[in-house]
Amino acid sequence: MRSKDVSLSNFCLIIEYDGSGFLGWQKQKEGRTVQGVLEEVLERIFKKKIEVKGQGRMDAGVHALGQVANFFAPWNHSLSQLKTALNSFLPEDIRIREVKRVSPSFHSRFSALSRTYIYLLWEGENFPVFLRNYVSRISQKLNLSLMKKGAVYLLGRHDFTSFSKKGEKGSKVRTLKEIDIFRRKKISLPCGEWRGSFLLFRFKADSFLHQMVRIMVGTLVEVGRRKIAPERIREILSSRDRTQAGPTFPPQGLYLVEVEYEEF
Amino acid sequence: MRSKDVSLSNFCLIIEYDGSGFLGWQKQKEGRTVQGVLEEVLERIFKKKIEVKGQGRMDAGVHALGQVANFFAPWNHSLSQLKTALNSFLPEDIRIREVKRVSPSFHSRFSALSRTYIYLLWEGENFPVFLRNYVSRISQKLNLSLMKKGAVYLLGRHDFTSFSKKGEKGSKVRTLKEIDIFRRKKISLPCGEWRGSFLLFRFKADSFLHQMVRIMVGTLVEVGRRKIAPERIREILSSRDRTQAGPTFPPQGLYLVEVEYEEF
Repeated sequence: MRSKDVSLSNFCLIIEYDGSGFLGWQKQKEGRTVQGVLEEVLERIFKKKIEVKGQGRMDAGVHALGQVANFFAPWNHSLSQLKTALNSFLPEDIRIREVKRVSPSFHSRFSALSRTYIYLLWEGENFPVFLRNYVSRISQKLNLSLMKKGAVYLLGRHDFTSFSKKGEKGSKVRTLKEIDIFRRKKISLPCGEWRGSFLLFRFKADSFLHQMVRIMVGTLVEVGRRKIAPERIREILSSRDRTQAGPTFPPQGLYLVEVEYEEF
Repeated sequence: MRSKDVSLSNFCLIIEYDGSGFLGWQKQKEGRTVQGVLEEVLERIFKKKIEVKGQGRMDAGVHALGQVANFFAPWNHSLSQLKTALNSFLPEDIRIREVKRVSPSFHSRFSALSRTYIYLLWEGENFPVFLRNYVSRISQKLNLSLMKKGAVYLLGRHDFTSFSKKGEKGSKVRTLKEIDIFRRKKISLPCGEWRGSFLLFRFKADSFLHQMVRIMVGTLVEVGRRKIAPERIREILSSRDRTQAGPTFPPQGLYLVEVEYEEF
């Protein structure tokens, strides 16, 4: 018996990050990515290369309140010590919110039951300067009740080819479980309050295709502008043609909020 | 009578800006400043050089909700058209909140009756990644009631030499009219809420010396850490010696909130 040996455990991280300074999640040959920065820090802590598996890729500029990733490593101290070690090496635009020990079969991507995203969109005037990397913006106010009508057609199990980046491989069938749109008239920041109007979109699905949320938002905005009728969404879905849907909205309003798992 | 002539008016701007991307207010030979960017935009609109006078210099990284500046120019359209013209040329990190026509004798600096600043300071854990340019941070929680006791000694008319950047010229006598410190346990951002603890300091004075707010905060934090007694503030003031006060706290928690004038 070699009691000093530390066997490998599977650790899961809940990660908050500001996407403004990253080329997204996935490691690339050049450029700063969240996965790349995390793996550098794990190598400093564990003195060896450790692969971090994320729940999914995220585009440049997209933010996360609850990105999930997992990795196998030896660690014979407490979970809170691991969290402290990670946060002390990580730059200020990535924070580990939680570290959990999970079963060996847990995989942040394949074990996920659902993902929830929000999208923030400022309508019209009085846009706070402090939000330019955190909220998208359009110049006019939208018709919210038309957008809500249109959103209903997206709910359920569909082939979302029309709402995904062209050229993506694999099945395009996804189940959109929840979709909400709220309008708020007041925005609070620590330094003050702004009157104005902004929309908060919330989407929950088993999983999302590449750019799916940003294209759904772009299409719902066309509905809110009365450029297309709410019922048109059904036809866009059945066309399975990306060119039928609206534009891909910018990444800075998009946040991954939560990923659900059976284990926690 | 030359009815088409447009005589010069004195215009006053209320300006919101994100200090993160500026070397401060004042024009410099090199580097991006708020005054520099504003004067470039005015030159584009009026086709001639126009000097903008600010209510005071502001350091790099300091933010403004209500910076005030004025300039003389010919303009025969409405004030709201001038505001729209300015905002359409200005970058997204500067927004004109209001344009007023003021009397010829109005000077944004010399006519000001008071200035109000706030300073935001996060205490301890759970710092949201989205606030790293907008809120300062310390690692431990402070004793708020000691800080409030210490703050009282700063109120009133004093020589604030100990609380100003060394080498500054002119009178160091200022009147600190109001000082408040609040603690909040919840921070709201458009994308979510964070539990934690942060302090909001609010200072109102006839005017402030260079770095005066940041040195007052640094000194009050020493009191909150129990490194110095609240009563010590009185001695620091009377010493007229910068080295007696606490450190100059970082600029990113500091916001110019409001400047008061008799005219409006």
